[in-house]
Amino acid sequence: MFVENVLPIVLGISVLSLVVAAFLAKHVLAADTGKPEMREISDAIREGAEAFLSRQYRTIALLSVVAAAAIFGFYFVNRDVKNIAEMGAGTFWRVTLSFVIGALCSAVAGYIGMFVSIRANIRTAAAAMTSLNRALQIALRAGAVSGLTVVAMSLLGVGGLFYFFGGLNDYRHVPLQIVGFGFGASFVALFAQLGGGIYTKAADVGADLVGKVEAGIPEDDPRNPAVVADLVGDNVGDCAGRGADLFESTAAENVGAMILGIALFPVFGMGGILFPLLARAFGLLATMVGVFVVRCREDEDPMDALNRGYLVTTILAMLGFAAAVYLLLVPVAGSPVVVHRRYLLLAGIIGILTAYAFVWITQYYTEYKYRPVRSIAEASRTGPATNIISGLAVGFECTGAPVIVISAALMAAYWCGKAALGGAPGSGLYGTAIATMGMLAPCAYILAMDTFGPITDNAGGIIEMSKQPEAVRQKTDRLDSVGNTTKALTKGYAIGSAALAAFLLFSAYLDEVAKITGSHIGVDLTKVPVFVGGLLGATLVFVFSSLAIKAVGNAAQVVITEVRRQFKENAGIMAGTSKPDYARCVDIVTVGALREMVAPGLLAVLAPVAVGFLFKYLGHGAGQLGAESVAALLMVGTIAGILMATVMNNGGGAWDNAKKYIESGEFKVDGVVVGKKSEPHKAAVVGDTVGDPFKDTAGPSLHVLIKLLSTITLVLAPLFIR
Amino acid sequence: MFVENVLPIVLGISVLSLVVAAFLAKHVLAADTGKPEMREISDAIREGAEAFLSRQYRTIALLSVVAAAAIFGFYFVNRDVKNIAEMGAGTFWRVTLSFVIGALCSAVAGYIGMFVSIRANIRTAAAAMTSLNRALQIALRAGAVSGLTVVAMSLLGVGGLFYFFGGLNDYRHVPLQIVGFGFGASFVALFAQLGGGIYTKAADVGADLVGKVEAGIPEDDPRNPAVVADLVGDNVGDCAGRGADLFESTAAENVGAMILGIALFPVFGMGGILFPLLARAFGLLATMVGVFVVRCREDEDPMDALNRGYLVTTILAMLGFAAAVYLLLVPVAGSPVVVHRRYLLLAGIIGILTAYAFVWITQYYTEYKYRPVRSIAEASRTGPATNIISGLAVGFECTGAPVIVISAALMAAYWCGKAALGGAPGSGLYGTAIATMGMLAPCAYILAMDTFGPITDNAGGIIEMSKQPEAVRQKTDRLDSVGNTTKALTKGYAIGSAALAAFLLFSAYLDEVAKITGSHIGVDLTKVPVFVGGLLGATLVFVFSSLAIKAVGNAAQVVITEVRRQFKENAGIMAGTSKPDYARCVDIVTVGALREMVAPGLLAVLAPVAVGFLFKYLGHGAGQLGAESVAALLMVGTIAGILMATVMNNGGGAWDNAKKYIESGEFKVDGVVVGKKSEPHKAAVVGDTVGDPFKDTAGPSLHVLIKLLSTITLVLAPLFIR
Repeated sequence: MFVENVLPIVLGISVLSLVVAAFLAKHVLAADTGKPEMREISDAIREGAEAFLSRQYRTIALLSVVAAAAIFGFYFVNRDVKNIAEMGAGTFWRVTLSFVIGALCSAVAGYIGMFVSIRANIRTAAAAMTSLNRALQIALRAGAVSGLTVVAMSLLGVGGLFYFFGGLNDYRHVPLQIVGFGFGASFVALFAQLGGGIYTKAADVGADLVGKVEAGIPEDDPRNPAVVADLVGDNVGDCAGRGADLFESTAAENVGAMILGIALFPVFGMGGILFPLLARAFGLLATMVGVFVVRCREDEDPMDALNRGYLVTTILAMLGFAAAVYLLLVPVAGSPVVVHRRYLLLAGIIGILTAYAFVWITQYYTEYKYRPVRSIAEASRTGPATNIISGLAVGFECTGAPVIVISAALMAAYWCGKAALGGAPGSGLYGTAIATMGMLAPCAYILAMDTFGPITDNAGGIIEMSKQPEAVRQKTDRLDSVGNTTKALTKGYAIGSAALAAFLLFSAYLDEVAKITGSHIGVDLTKVPVFVGGLLGATLVFVFSSLAIKAVGNAAQVVITEVRRQFKENAGIMAGTSKPDYARCVDIVTVGALREMVAPGLLAVLAPVAVGFLFKYLGHGAGQLGAESVAALLMVGTIAGILMATVMNNGGGAWDNAKKYIESGEFKVDGVVVGKKSEPHKAAVVGDTVGDPFKDTAGPSLHVLIKLLSTITLVLAPLFIR
Repeated sequence: MFVENVLPIVLGISVLSLVVAAFLAKHVLAADTGKPEMREISDAIREGAEAFLSRQYRTIALLSVVAAAAIFGFYFVNRDVKNIAEMGAGTFWRVTLSFVIGALCSAVAGYIGMFVSIRANIRTAAAAMTSLNRALQIALRAGAVSGLTVVAMSLLGVGGLFYFFGGLNDYRHVPLQIVGFGFGASFVALFAQLGGGIYTKAADVGADLVGKVEAGIPEDDPRNPAVVADLVGDNVGDCAGRGADLFESTAAENVGAMILGIALFPVFGMGGILFPLLARAFGLLATMVGVFVVRCREDEDPMDALNRGYLVTTILAMLGFAAAVYLLLVPVAGSPVVVHRRYLLLAGIIGILTAYAFVWITQYYTEYKYRPVRSIAEASRTGPATNIISGLAVGFECTGAPVIVISAALMAAYWCGKAALGGAPGSGLYGTAIATMGMLAPCAYILAMDTFGPITDNAGGIIEMSKQPEAVRQKTDRLDSVGNTTKALTKGYAIGSAALAAFLLFSAYLDEVAKITGSHIGVDLTKVPVFVGGLLGATLVFVFSSLAIKAVGNAAQVVITEVRRQFKENAGIMAGTSKPDYARCVDIVTVGALREMVAPGLLAVLAPVAVGFLFKYLGHGAGQLGAESVAALLMVGTIAGILMATVMNNGGGAWDNAKKYIESGEFKVDGVVVGKKSEPHKAAVVGDTVGDPFKDTAGPSLHVLIKLLSTITLVLAPLFIR
């Protein structure tokens, strides 16, 4: 039977991906590193990024050890209690080990992404001096190192643990034991994204406020002491942070989908449980081809080249997905139901279409071709206040379309699942799981495009700071602008997949509770504690956003003070006769960002634990009110999180591009072009600055928060059961 | 038995309140109207406000007729269908009549509030020329006209309809038939608050942006053509809008609590159904005493005087509440359960304490004595961007404390209800209903304090525009500043009561569905359509906020264009030699605000109808998925609404007071006072302008939206049942 070969195939493809990633990395590192003055800047960026990551990882390691000890302690002490005993033998060390491996893999994924990107920036810059295509390929292939590694490691982790724990013989218990892997990944991702997000925006806002506004020097001007910190920030926020974010997504969703597969064991046997892994592995193969296909003519929009690669990846991933459906979702002998596989394939296609719809909606709300961004630019005519009002209005508005898409996708995928299996128990939910898998199939390529962003951004900064010829700058500017688009699209994709996956993870949680207690619970908002759980979940999202935003403000304040001090104490900096102390700025942002990431991180981790405990004992009446209230916290928190993240990502992106629209020279008032340095431009700069912590700190951290809520409740479910 | 006399007592107290209100109005109107130049301004305000209201009411009347026809049509066509037939004979005309009367009462309540306030402004201004106490009393008593009328009319409406429809004989059906009253009130309130809110902020933002920012003239300067429109706005937004808002609250919550009382008929008989009315009536008596108690020494903070009145009102209301509990919540002969009334009283006290906690939290987040507002002022040092970031962070943060309070109150009140009745069915929910009644007992006094705000604001404007002596201006400034505080407190109170009442109204809806279908439904988020309903409910809040904010921007743009036109075409205006055309500005804002209020209003009304219908037919599986999805929309929408309204109200208030803090001369940078016209002040003005549509348009409209969602689902419940 094919099923027995699935794990070897999945693990084999994962290893192959790592080999290809290593090959790509070698290829990138072999490229020319340009002129000495460029290397000097790139070295500073590299050192800063590595220093930040090593300090950040030390903090995260400490927190992870505490978390691991808590998990171990709880499971060990209660190992004979029925709830835990139900989860199978050795659960106490297995869950803990999964957590530790998940945390480690996440850290490694983030590190590798950044390792390559801080070396690819200078090589992309050097390549841009001769060929646009060469620069594009270096940046994308460096991004692919990150994309392939992240997805391959999540498959190796989940597949490996499943195999190692004997999942092929004990399919009922093992998926519950490896939920720790997802939680470990979320735990590290939360702090990585928070720390990186705070770092990048504190440096950016600090550099802009003193440099652009007070001193009147342009962006990326080497006289600005915070400019290196700003470039470091792109790497630690976008590369390391987003890498950990998407690693977490793929890990959590693999585990969640496998748990849902258990319910369909009578129908598909092991095939239904292993399907998510195979579909994802085929997606890896598709990505490898897609990345190698990309090449771009000198006179072409680089975005078109990237889109061709995306299209190839998507088509191949779809074919692989169909193959996985027809190979694995086969009724076992004696299956009680007839399976219509075309509906399962349809669910996968719904997932892919949802990804496209999200990308399209994100573009509509964040590109200046369309009404929303233009309305913000228009509003800038009457000053910063109307710019902000209009940007917030766009941000709130842009939740509508994605929610309608996600609602339709959920309903349709659910219907597909039911139709495919004649309404067998768990079939509707499995339909939504399949749609999620479809959406995530081309994930590695998307991540490669995302990492492309900070690499080209850095390359542009290096060219600018080392004062290379205008023609080169134009090339890196073109790449940089494409990088901005891909970064925005990835965020749309990430929130879309988080939204679709959320339902999968809720269901996995409820399935887990059902497996432990032997009876299904609902999440009935008419019960007071459950309603209160939901209310607290939504509030958690608001307070977490506040903390993340404030953290940027606090850390930026430190940068501002330091830059002012350097300008004041060393007049040679502004005159261009002496160099600013970049390293000190990098150091100061590092300390500030790490200090500020702890409070929001702990809030996110501790809130669900507190609610679960509280209502376990305090809940009125009988039933599993602890588990049910936590589920409400999770579900309503996810709803609020999806909405807030959309507001923050798209609102921030729209403000950014409203400023760019005015700078582009296309913006006219009464027929006259109004551009840089005009009053509307100044107003738009205010909006852009407000949007920065929205789109690069709070928004991305909310993606992680949503998934963390799911994985933490998965791990702690037995805790909340009476 | 006492119960038979309850309705006459309630109606008698209501009529007495109207008489006292008329007496107060006569007293206010008899006061001196000051100098001719003051009267000229006040006449302009009065005309503008009346013109707006009459046009607005015409639009709302039109929409109401359509809604009434739709309700009548639906109930009439389906009058023999089981669902409707279950609601009792004559339901079709009774629900419609209730709707029409509710709508009419709401309009009248709003009109009376504004009628007195636009006449009290000049009289308060005139009194301020001689005595602070006299001015305070006139403003508060004028406010009390509105407060007493609103609450008395809601009691007359609900109590009268109950009596007229024969509720004393048919307690099972009549409460369901008068839900239309609540919906009528909500329907009018939504458009009144939206239209008024858009008007007031469009005029304010428009006047500020051209006057203060472009022309450099101070606030309330008579040369600004939009200044009268701005003063009109205070009346139509704060008086008429808030009056309709609180009328709706009291009406909806009376009906909801009566429906919950039905479930306890076996225990309390009619007493449990009539209790909400009697508690509220005693609150009216307490308010009358409280208002007459208020007097203030010339050297005293007027806020202390108002607080004394509030304290007296609260204590008396508590005594009345206790009397109502001990008189009405008496077990009937043969009652199956023992009643511990002290727990019911305790639930009421929890409600009162919740009101206090909300008022205190609102003060903490919006007054410049405390950290949050000061942090915004600090952030203004680095410009408008950091001011905005910091204000948004405060806004998001300030959801935490109120949610914890409301969660604790809900849980505790629920527990009290259960403890009082030994866990009898419906007892926990009745506990939350009693807490809500406790919170709303001093409602009329709160509303009086709220209306005090725009009256003193107007009085200040009249004194300023007619260039009265500085000493008088100082007095009106003191009153105005107290008015700002009371306005902020009322918003905290309104959102707190909406949050507490929300659960009551959900439960009433579910009880209604249960009465119609004969079986209880839950609201189980694990079902896909129910989750989607919840997701759509939260999204509705975001999109509605966006539309409300954008409406202000659009309407303000029209004002800006008009003011610029007047300045350009008539140079004499700025020179002070010729008068601007105030009336044209008033006219333009009126047209703009009315046009802009329609889209968000219709979205709010139609969204629950659409979802209910959609899932009734589209829902997967069996059960009442239409009704259940709408309930999820309602509940998750309410959660999101409470949070967003809190963000908007408190964020806006905090921005406002950060600006005032800098203006106060207490704000120092490095030990040096930094005040008006400084760079931080300019940054703070941007924040204040952004906060305007938050706190006076979107936030208050969200209070109404929350309750509208409840009342519309109550009325349309039979529609969503298969």
